[in-house]
Amino acid sequence: MSEGLEEILEKSSRLMANRGFHGTSMRDLAAATGLSQSALSHYFRSKQALLFLINLQGFTALKDAWLKIGSVMKTPHERLYAFIFVHVTYFVDHMSEMRIMTWGTLALRLEKAKMIQKLKDQYTDIARQVVREVREAETDRPMEDARVSREVYLLFGMMNWMQSWYSAKTHGAPADLIDDIYGTFLGGISRPQRNEQNVTFLRDAMRDLYRAHAADPGRSNAARP
Amino acid sequence: MSEGLEEILEKSSRLMANRGFHGTSMRDLAAATGLSQSALSHYFRSKQALLFLINLQGFTALKDAWLKIGSVMKTPHERLYAFIFVHVTYFVDHMSEMRIMTWGTLALRLEKAKMIQKLKDQYTDIARQVVREVREAETDRPMEDARVSREVYLLFGMMNWMQSWYSAKTHGAPADLIDDIYGTFLGGISRPQRNEQNVTFLRDAMRDLYRAHAADPGRSNAARP
Repeated sequence: MSEGLEEILEKSSRLMANRGFHGTSMRDLAAATGLSQSALSHYFRSKQALLFLINLQGFTALKDAWLKIGSVMKTPHERLYAFIFVHVTYFVDHMSEMRIMTWGTLALRLEKAKMIQKLKDQYTDIARQVVREVREAETDRPMEDARVSREVYLLFGMMNWMQSWYSAKTHGAPADLIDDIYGTFLGGISRPQRNEQNVTFLRDAMRDLYRAHAADPGRSNAARP
Repeated sequence: MSEGLEEILEKSSRLMANRGFHGTSMRDLAAATGLSQSALSHYFRSKQALLFLINLQGFTALKDAWLKIGSVMKTPHERLYAFIFVHVTYFVDHMSEMRIMTWGTLALRLEKAKMIQKLKDQYTDIARQVVREVREAETDRPMEDARVSREVYLLFGMMNWMQSWYSAKTHGAPADLIDDIYGTFLGGISRPQRNEQNVTFLRDAMRDLYRAHAADPGRSNAARP
């Protein structure tokens, strides 16, 4: 993604996240980005196109980061930690985009909405696989499909809800949030204590991997206009 | 709350939840409720007043239900189950209101926003107390305040995120969702099995209490216009 587009998407997302989809016009977006409406339409032709671009870029980035980082992890527990790490780290850096991505795709034309839904489904399938594997590693009781789905959505809930409350200043560093989500999802509030060493190892490994991924010039071009 | 107001709030909430605050006008709301704009303004004078009313009604109802039902519970675990039960049950019945309540109160005048914030803070304090007590009952390791806050928001995340995915048809009855949230928050995905008997007992007790509460003509008048 070019630097120019990245900055424009960021400013546009911030405005649209605050004003809502219906409360934002191309004129507002032009003002927020400091461009003329015709210059802005070089990047996206309508606010529908912007909504599509934010979703495409976001879900592609999440999936790409997972494919690189998750594939290096060796155990189901490491993969669960990595999944949470990638998801939370991406959204701490893209809070406005996150709010917009949770609106869904009702405003898009059917064909575009289907493209985004497919990406979302692939990403949810990854989560389902991660959750199922960690459950199987912990206990030999199989989990019925409906419950796997519910548990996956509980995990997404713990992660995505941060858009409504989280600030590093008040609530601690992202790493603390990631550790709590991992610990609570795995062992609940009643877990006697965290396996600090294990989490510290994972935390450091993940940070290095994520940095290397973010710096990789070969990462996805999907969102290039 | 009078029957007429309840129905009007429900229809108005459904429209505003779908269109967004900025995308909804008093004219749209009049059309959705089948009233003239002047008849509608008898119930609320502006969409800001509607936003205030939905928040006031919602957080008051949640707090009232908790005060009645939570006070009957004898143990920290029962209180945690009851808190989740009341919250999820209320929002399964008021999904549009829930979506609107998560928008926050930026669109309200300062004085009104402060009233809602106070209700929210009181409700969050209840959750904090419930979580702290159940943690103390499970382990003698004290939990630092910042972590209690994060855990409370993880719990709210598991519950509130249902607005983006839950349907009884696809994902099972609300009771299954409540049991999973309780089980995962308390013991994590790796819990060997649920204490079925305990949950069944709680589930039945809660349903009866909630029904009795909902039928009580003396419950809150706070949202009467």
